[in-house]
Amino acid sequence: MIELTPIGRVESELTDQASAPKQGLEGAPDAWLVFEPAVLDALEGIERGADVIVLTWLDRARRDVLRVHPRDDLANPLTGVFSTRSADRPNPIGLHPVQVASVEGARVRVRGLEAIDGTPIVDVKPVLRRRLDT
Amino acid sequence: MIELTPIGRVESELTDQASAPKQGLEGAPDAWLVFEPAVLDALEGIERGADVIVLTWLDRARRDVLRVHPRDDLANPLTGVFSTRSADRPNPIGLHPVQVASVEGARVRVRGLEAIDGTPIVDVKPVLRRRLDT
Repeated sequence: MIELTPIGRVESELTDQASAPKQGLEGAPDAWLVFEPAVLDALEGIERGADVIVLTWLDRARRDVLRVHPRDDLANPLTGVFSTRSADRPNPIGLHPVQVASVEGARVRVRGLEAIDGTPIVDVKPVLRRRLDT
Repeated sequence: MIELTPIGRVESELTDQASAPKQGLEGAPDAWLVFEPAVLDALEGIERGADVIVLTWLDRARRDVLRVHPRDDLANPLTGVFSTRSADRPNPIGLHPVQVASVEGARVRVRGLEAIDGTPIVDVKPVLRRRLDT
């Protein structure tokens, strides 16, 4: 059994999944990442201007969905979820590339995050510059 | 509690974490992603040449490590793991951008994967072209 431990939560003005942008670059607001005190040491080095990838657990998602109409548009043919960014998937891990706007202790402000208020954060990674985009 | 369900396993000639490349572009070999029959429908649309991000669970990692010397080099100062790609971190999720070389039913061949043999796969996502690299 693989058990994830939330390391923090998203604090956002977005409260409704249906009306939230599908991707961060589609008009998502800035948001706070509020980390557990226990992981403060792991934040060392996270600074204003850093490009990071936030991994979340999309706890409102359905895990029994294997195919979707991309972007919830019935005009798009049914597609396997591994070819889409659908939140509904066997393990609904969200991948959010964002830029750090400011750091205040265990509170990190980031730009353009589409995850809704209360979403558990499970990891943060630096962006590596290379051939592929996220 | 958040429970991840492995959706498959990595089949690779890499069997030893210590000698495995740290990133896929650092000489990692091609490998097979072997998916569970239960998620076959979710693979629909995954085709040769596709750029995808494979998410794994790095089950040999230590979860109590919050700071590391990047790249295991003691000359590098201790850094919070969220600013590094260290496998050791509270939730050791691996993020691997790879290109699909071929698809044979539930077996997907990918190029340049640094995960070692037997590593559980937890998700696959398409690469979205935008401002940030992985």
